[in-house]
Amino acid sequence: MIHHLPFNAEAPPEGLTGDTTPTEQHYVRSNFALPEHDGTLEIGGAVGSPTTLTLDDLRAMPSVERAVTLECAGNGRLETRPLPAGEPWGAYAVSTAVWTGTWLRDVLERAQPAADGVEVRFEGADSGSYLLNPVLAQTVKSDLTFVRSLTLEHALDPAAEILIAYEMNGRPLGPDHGAPFRIVVPGWFAVASVKWLKRIDVVTEPFEGEFQTGHYVYEWPDRPHERVTTMRVRARITDPAPGAVLTPGTHVIRGKAWSGTGPVTNVDLSFTGEGTWSPAVVEAPKGPHQWQNWAYEWEVDLPGRYSIRARATDAAGNEQPDVPPWNRLGYGNNAVEVSYVDVR
Amino acid sequence: MIHHLPFNAEAPPEGLTGDTTPTEQHYVRSNFALPEHDGTLEIGGAVGSPTTLTLDDLRAMPSVERAVTLECAGNGRLETRPLPAGEPWGAYAVSTAVWTGTWLRDVLERAQPAADGVEVRFEGADSGSYLLNPVLAQTVKSDLTFVRSLTLEHALDPAAEILIAYEMNGRPLGPDHGAPFRIVVPGWFAVASVKWLKRIDVVTEPFEGEFQTGHYVYEWPDRPHERVTTMRVRARITDPAPGAVLTPGTHVIRGKAWSGTGPVTNVDLSFTGEGTWSPAVVEAPKGPHQWQNWAYEWEVDLPGRYSIRARATDAAGNEQPDVPPWNRLGYGNNAVEVSYVDVR
Repeated sequence: MIHHLPFNAEAPPEGLTGDTTPTEQHYVRSNFALPEHDGTLEIGGAVGSPTTLTLDDLRAMPSVERAVTLECAGNGRLETRPLPAGEPWGAYAVSTAVWTGTWLRDVLERAQPAADGVEVRFEGADSGSYLLNPVLAQTVKSDLTFVRSLTLEHALDPAAEILIAYEMNGRPLGPDHGAPFRIVVPGWFAVASVKWLKRIDVVTEPFEGEFQTGHYVYEWPDRPHERVTTMRVRARITDPAPGAVLTPGTHVIRGKAWSGTGPVTNVDLSFTGEGTWSPAVVEAPKGPHQWQNWAYEWEVDLPGRYSIRARATDAAGNEQPDVPPWNRLGYGNNAVEVSYVDVR
Repeated sequence: MIHHLPFNAEAPPEGLTGDTTPTEQHYVRSNFALPEHDGTLEIGGAVGSPTTLTLDDLRAMPSVERAVTLECAGNGRLETRPLPAGEPWGAYAVSTAVWTGTWLRDVLERAQPAADGVEVRFEGADSGSYLLNPVLAQTVKSDLTFVRSLTLEHALDPAAEILIAYEMNGRPLGPDHGAPFRIVVPGWFAVASVKWLKRIDVVTEPFEGEFQTGHYVYEWPDRPHERVTTMRVRARITDPAPGAVLTPGTHVIRGKAWSGTGPVTNVDLSFTGEGTWSPAVVEAPKGPHQWQNWAYEWEVDLPGRYSIRARATDAAGNEQPDVPPWNRLGYGNNAVEVSYVDVR
């Protein structure tokens, strides 16, 4: 647990071992205390047919189920140097759940977006005093609401498979995960997956807000600022645990890998510091939006301490860097994971 | 333990809690298997009076006792990014012991160094096949001896207080610590403190060797290579342990700090990522060559996860950097330590 109020908690290590993460182990990211929600979803703004939907209305629409890996943009911030401000997430702000809902695009089309609509603005029911220092001058720290936007093109793209989800792992969404319904944006850092969804507005100007253009922006030291969008390619070692003591012999090193920019095609392992990389066996994706399993059979005879590194590459050719991509607020740390074990 | 053969082991965390480290907890760094030693020390080369000394001869000379903090130049290598080759030391290749011996300068003066002597070459009894890949072309990997040098000026400098030590914490040196006698060079990374000392030679040309000009060289990416000499200023947090769960209230954060370039004058703590630093209380040095205790009374009321950083500054004005000073072989990582605790 990072904070109790607002509630922020990493997954336990065992939350990464299966194809999906049990709901009670799924990491939780909240910016404000748990909100009240009146059970309705308003769709308005620049639309031909403003609409109000209830959970029952959403359930009456065609339903879809997708396993989706969600990762916090600040995952791994504690490993970033210099240490940035922000929630001190270790490396376990990532999980995979099966989400059931209806397509966002179907809901939007029902409301008939105006021809001059450029973005879709999603407002959560959560608001209050912000724990961090706002970046935007106009943000009132004591009274802020969680709002994000996507381009209309992205929101309507069938390939994007954006859900309005009302179930998680086969049960209604719990309060910490955005009950009664939330957005799930596959492939994007989870800040885009607005919880406790209350309003959707089509807007004719790009949206600016603390969670859109203040925070969740890569403030690079040497080039223009950039929005946090897709998850970066990353491998995690799930077994053995760091510091584990192994006997000489053969051990299977296992882990997960994911990327927002394509399926993971390669995971390479190294045991020597600089130098040799050997390919792990990477399982084919079980779906378009979820992490993949990988494994490496490691023969180790000589006792000693070994550094273990796992480095993923995705189909778009993105590869994990050795050094976290430093930015002032500490987003997107996808540096190669370094673990170690002692063989005795 | 990093390796059993050659034996390399970090101190356990409790080895850093006292003013000195119990011998059985003191970290051990060896490059080769434990050597035989015939009990004699030859002093030769460019000297007027070549000399052979036994342990009894050394014991018959004026004895001196100093608490000295020794740190491996590779301490913290596992935290360096990109991960360099070399022993994967965590952060516990540092310890403090009380060493008893005689002054190196007295022994050297007895042998009458020649007027054209420039360096003093120290040869250990340890040799064999080198675990790492040699840097120098002329090094024979299968047959290497541990040899280091110091300038004659440094070796003779009374202020340097270099010992030929034969006792550690009040008992004869054990095999892992260089029995029957070793050099102890205060303030320098411990590679200079040659164990199992067999020969001392005054030489008239600067010495070149694998452990002098091959390894133990900072191979900076952007400036000329540089020898590893003095320990860099550094603070360690000894209490609470990383990931400890604390109750809201007042907690004393404790640690050690040391530097090869002057006594530590300040240790500052931060709990917020970027931003505010608050001074810890730093104890005055108990001697010229040993780590100092520091403590900080931390009041914490709000539950949550806190990042704790400790940053030391020494009397020479050196301060720990946020990012390890990257060099190809991973020496001298003295980056600010980042720990975290959960308050519940």
